[in-house]
Amino acid sequence: MASNPACIEFWFDFGSPYSYLSMMRIDALTAAAGLTLIYRPFLLGPIFKALGYDTSPFVAHPEKGRYMWRDMQRQSEKQGLPFHKPSLFPRNALLATRVAMLGENTPWIRNYCRAIMRQNFEADQDISLRSNVVSALHGLVPDADALVVAAGDESNKQRLRQQVAIAQHLGIFGAPTFFVGDEMYWGNDRLDDAIAQAKQAGRL
Amino acid sequence: MASNPACIEFWFDFGSPYSYLSMMRIDALTAAAGLTLIYRPFLLGPIFKALGYDTSPFVAHPEKGRYMWRDMQRQSEKQGLPFHKPSLFPRNALLATRVAMLGENTPWIRNYCRAIMRQNFEADQDISLRSNVVSALHGLVPDADALVVAAGDESNKQRLRQQVAIAQHLGIFGAPTFFVGDEMYWGNDRLDDAIAQAKQAGRL
Repeated sequence: MASNPACIEFWFDFGSPYSYLSMMRIDALTAAAGLTLIYRPFLLGPIFKALGYDTSPFVAHPEKGRYMWRDMQRQSEKQGLPFHKPSLFPRNALLATRVAMLGENTPWIRNYCRAIMRQNFEADQDISLRSNVVSALHGLVPDADALVVAAGDESNKQRLRQQVAIAQHLGIFGAPTFFVGDEMYWGNDRLDDAIAQAKQAGRL
Repeated sequence: MASNPACIEFWFDFGSPYSYLSMMRIDALTAAAGLTLIYRPFLLGPIFKALGYDTSPFVAHPEKGRYMWRDMQRQSEKQGLPFHKPSLFPRNALLATRVAMLGENTPWIRNYCRAIMRQNFEADQDISLRSNVVSALHGLVPDADALVVAAGDESNKQRLRQQVAIAQHLGIFGAPTFFVGDEMYWGNDRLDDAIAQAKQAGRL
């Protein structure tokens, strides 16, 4: 996928707990490795629907959900993150993701994405609220309100639909998912392998 | 679950690729850590059925299956294992598992389980065949044929059904799954965390 081999694509969903774990460490890890990090926000909802789920598999299968929250607790502790189980799961990330689409290649994407993740998984705030999305942009862009309005433009909505279609085409079935060239890595547990692969590709 | 905290329960299915990855390293890892390893053979089939699957999720969701085989290739390379994708998946492990039930607390369980896993995931042999199950017991027990006959006793069949019921009761939804006391760890990726937890529990 990536033209430059020394880069890594990070496909994430703002409602995905394991995407949060990756979001909070991927920037430092890729910077330390000298890799270009490409943010690829998308929505898991349509992906899950195509797999036959009306909601998150963690909701559809309560055993999986129970385990996942315990695992999240342990893993975030390991990463030193102040994780707090959201009182609503999964949260509607449509607006937040549309805004992220506008930031894909901008300097503010990193801090914006981390702010949204922190709202959802640390502060238990509703990321579907326009006020919270605006607040996540605070200090990052000249006019946060204008940006949120622009995120609702038909052309941007269409770009997000295309992004999801690309995810589907790539065979993505969950998040986070990383790509190094054509190599796909699924889950926060594979981030280190993906980085190692990107470093190796960059040396060739 | 375990009365002795310095022990770890290993729930596995002979047809599960990631159970193979754990099977081939768990004995050495737990021995090095001074932990007691308890083998808990079971069947994923009834577990998946209860989750709404007629077959393995890797078959039901081809995207997941495609990714899993690639991931297995990478992970077994990392572990230095001669993994070979089975030409039939998932294989029927009923007889092999019934035999394992008879070995749960015996010295031969380890080598028997590794032999079955090697047949399935290295030699691409059909582990549902009586002759292959007998061959896996070769040199481990005085009378392999008699043991395979005993595995078909109604009482042993019933023990395996109970084992699956216990797995379900424990909230197991996949394999491998590890238990350290009440703490559950799912997947080969969590084996090291489970061992660390068992070591810590053993020091208390």
